[in-house]
Amino acid sequence: MSNNEENNRFTIQSFKSVECFDVSADVLVCGFGGAGGSAALEAALAGAEVVLFERASGSGGSTGMSSCEMYLGGSGGTALQKELGYEDSTENMISYLEMALEERGDPEKIRTYVEGAADHYDWAVSLGVTYKPAVMLERDVVPLTDESLLFTGNERTEIFKRKADPVPRGHVPSHEGDFGGRIFMDALTDAVEKAGVDIHYDSRVIRLLVKADGRVAGVVAREDNKEVFYEARRGVVLASGGFIMNKEMTAKYIPEIHSWATPYGNPFDMGDGIRLGMAAGGSVINMDQAFLSFPLYPPAKLTNGIMVNLQGDRFVNEDAYLARLGHYSSLQDEQRTYLLVDQDDYDHPMYIERLDVVAVGDTIEEIERESGLFPDGALQETVAFYNKFAETSQDPKFHKSPEWIKPLKAKPFALLDLSFENQTAVIMPGTTGPLTFSLGGLDTLPSGEVISVSGSVIPGLYAAGRVTAGLPRTSKGYASGMSVGDATFFGRLAGKSAAANAGQV
Amino acid sequence: MSNNEENNRFTIQSFKSVECFDVSADVLVCGFGGAGGSAALEAALAGAEVVLFERASGSGGSTGMSSCEMYLGGSGGTALQKELGYEDSTENMISYLEMALEERGDPEKIRTYVEGAADHYDWAVSLGVTYKPAVMLERDVVPLTDESLLFTGNERTEIFKRKADPVPRGHVPSHEGDFGGRIFMDALTDAVEKAGVDIHYDSRVIRLLVKADGRVAGVVAREDNKEVFYEARRGVVLASGGFIMNKEMTAKYIPEIHSWATPYGNPFDMGDGIRLGMAAGGSVINMDQAFLSFPLYPPAKLTNGIMVNLQGDRFVNEDAYLARLGHYSSLQDEQRTYLLVDQDDYDHPMYIERLDVVAVGDTIEEIERESGLFPDGALQETVAFYNKFAETSQDPKFHKSPEWIKPLKAKPFALLDLSFENQTAVIMPGTTGPLTFSLGGLDTLPSGEVISVSGSVIPGLYAAGRVTAGLPRTSKGYASGMSVGDATFFGRLAGKSAAANAGQV
Repeated sequence: MSNNEENNRFTIQSFKSVECFDVSADVLVCGFGGAGGSAALEAALAGAEVVLFERASGSGGSTGMSSCEMYLGGSGGTALQKELGYEDSTENMISYLEMALEERGDPEKIRTYVEGAADHYDWAVSLGVTYKPAVMLERDVVPLTDESLLFTGNERTEIFKRKADPVPRGHVPSHEGDFGGRIFMDALTDAVEKAGVDIHYDSRVIRLLVKADGRVAGVVAREDNKEVFYEARRGVVLASGGFIMNKEMTAKYIPEIHSWATPYGNPFDMGDGIRLGMAAGGSVINMDQAFLSFPLYPPAKLTNGIMVNLQGDRFVNEDAYLARLGHYSSLQDEQRTYLLVDQDDYDHPMYIERLDVVAVGDTIEEIERESGLFPDGALQETVAFYNKFAETSQDPKFHKSPEWIKPLKAKPFALLDLSFENQTAVIMPGTTGPLTFSLGGLDTLPSGEVISVSGSVIPGLYAAGRVTAGLPRTSKGYASGMSVGDATFFGRLAGKSAAANAGQV
Repeated sequence: MSNNEENNRFTIQSFKSVECFDVSADVLVCGFGGAGGSAALEAALAGAEVVLFERASGSGGSTGMSSCEMYLGGSGGTALQKELGYEDSTENMISYLEMALEERGDPEKIRTYVEGAADHYDWAVSLGVTYKPAVMLERDVVPLTDESLLFTGNERTEIFKRKADPVPRGHVPSHEGDFGGRIFMDALTDAVEKAGVDIHYDSRVIRLLVKADGRVAGVVAREDNKEVFYEARRGVVLASGGFIMNKEMTAKYIPEIHSWATPYGNPFDMGDGIRLGMAAGGSVINMDQAFLSFPLYPPAKLTNGIMVNLQGDRFVNEDAYLARLGHYSSLQDEQRTYLLVDQDDYDHPMYIERLDVVAVGDTIEEIERESGLFPDGALQETVAFYNKFAETSQDPKFHKSPEWIKPLKAKPFALLDLSFENQTAVIMPGTTGPLTFSLGGLDTLPSGEVISVSGSVIPGLYAAGRVTAGLPRTSKGYASGMSVGDATFFGRLAGKSAAANAGQV
């Protein structure tokens, strides 16, 4: 079947056209990643009879592939933050998120999330996920040692510190190495099974069943090459992930990113749920936005270098978080950027597989000449200007934090190629460009209810996770843990909402 | 009625629920601007019985407010280009558009448009619109004298010249002053009336009538405070403009632009047609993109200056077209940019109402000190670097064309504030920020057929103009005349398609 035919399958069917249902349940949940598992669990614990569909042969989704960082805080601090001596107020965390998400933030979702985030941490613990009361303060993406708390955003950069006190909010299951997603999903799967959820693996939901009044009241799933008809007495929860693996959708909604980034997610992030939701009249928003990785560090000492574009100009504070570096790099001509470091800081970023050293030289003039990339003298002027202020730990152009500012003086200097076309992430050998996943999807209320294109709520339809435009909205303001935090938090709310729905009959 | 209730009105109604139709016709066209008028005319000339609805009390829409520039060429040249000695091949124009539209261009629409553009000029002439065989080669937005051919994009900039030979493609009705839109719409209205189209002014289409199989087969229009039911035997054409006047939609789809730009269009660019199309299952694309004006010139001599951001760095070739200047300016911190000119070029841009002179000084150091905007020495270095290459008419950083390059030396210098928050367009007194209109909408085939969210064509539904994502897709690559050219060209195709539709019965 061609990709196009695949696309055409996700549609709606009239409820009354179904002569006989194979299964009837209260709540049907599509997708067993972080969002779907959380929704199914809460719906079952609320007393609903729940069927959970997963296209893969096991639970996990993109949450299972992730480090399972959750971006949590507020309410005086999570239990973990408090134990480690960090205080985090609800207003402080909201200030941070408002600044990070700018015009794209959903104020209701931000407040709902922040007010519930500390309790959400307790919930994860209650599932049996273990967090070690130890903080990692290095500039890193995920701890490969077993600490459970770290900074995962732009909290410590100067411009953010002006608006919000920096607090580490990345909560990650404790384990040596990067196994958080599997740890969490195993615990969640165990809880879902114990709660009596009827789990259907290798089952792909291909149509929503819609009543004449627009209510979503069931699904058609493809299992063992047969179409199986399920009635939902209370509601259907879409939680089948984003669309980053669907080339037609990435070409349509994120055409630039499609042309130079590498999709990052599980193979079934095909936009099924978004397409089903749209077919039922759901509105989609934020469809042009996606996360962009740019894991320049560790080692953190690379942050002492300066990033420049083809004009030889700097364009960002180099201590920004990786997703923000990805955003600003994407705006440079041809997505070509370079890192200039001196002898003291030369090293290979550990998350980038290959890294071309474009030039090495005892002077910046030599670097310019050997690289042949910049207008004559442009890089020399940039370095001279940077060094002049670096002597007093200042960066008046981009406000890098003083701890990463030092004059570039120790020869030889090296220029490393960070251009998207020359970048391959260690975790995706053979690819080029930053890793990306989609941040647009169905427009929902914090309750998980899906908003229709005419602005009303679609009865019986709920969604959570990357099927939706949730908490995270831009790469510029992304902090790791925003997506899994959002998926599990709003997944739980969606499950509760569906279970509490007065019903379709 | 609140704005929210307004939004909820645009929906679908079951065709069979209508007991009695007030009117039955072959083709119903919603909106009498450039797109709708062109669609109605072609449908009528093809033998269809046509009803044309317009919410305003007369024809015009945003085309009527515009200069009615049409971006035309290809096929060896339009009659006007040829008469003036310009040759323009189809492939040359396609090369230009591909470069301008980058990943967002629709290859089928580009080719269809370019191959038919020269004939489209003849069609405009056949309506009685007069074009004067005279070319205006100055750097200007629209001729206020009576020439009919001009450059309206980035054709003459160095980076575009590498890919496509520069040819003027802006075709504007001849008149002293900026009256092209009214001239064209009067001629089109006359033709529409003569063709026997049944025109309903003060009539707002609020619902589409949809058959059980998804076919669009009529509309409900609000006229004299009554709902009137119209059957469409062949098809419905949506041509009611973009959504730039709808604050809920701009907040949702272009949140950043919504926060700092001024909507530019006719008051009924409320997204009616887009919402109706979505309610009928239509897919929307390119919803995050909008035109941004930045009419820095004339006088063209301002182009001799340099634009800088808050870092004191240049960020664009200053000879770019206004929409491209708007795009790059929008990417700078706080959308704050400044123009530095020397004594020889100091002047007031004629399309900007107010313009703060931030600083005047005999040296750049004085300008820096008086303005207090830039890091110490940043502007001095930028000017020194620019001047060094300007001595030999080079701009190795941004490739401004040599004709606009000269060292900035004649004191005193002046720094003019071009920041969005301090910008008011002459044609919109009292506003702030660049003017903007939406470039996203229903996804259509060149024929005007509307593509559904599941990828199929919605039978009986057609769309053209800013209801759709048409030829123009970005401000970065916009050329004036792309939108009216697109609206009228694809409006005609949509009208022909609807008239040729086998019918709904």
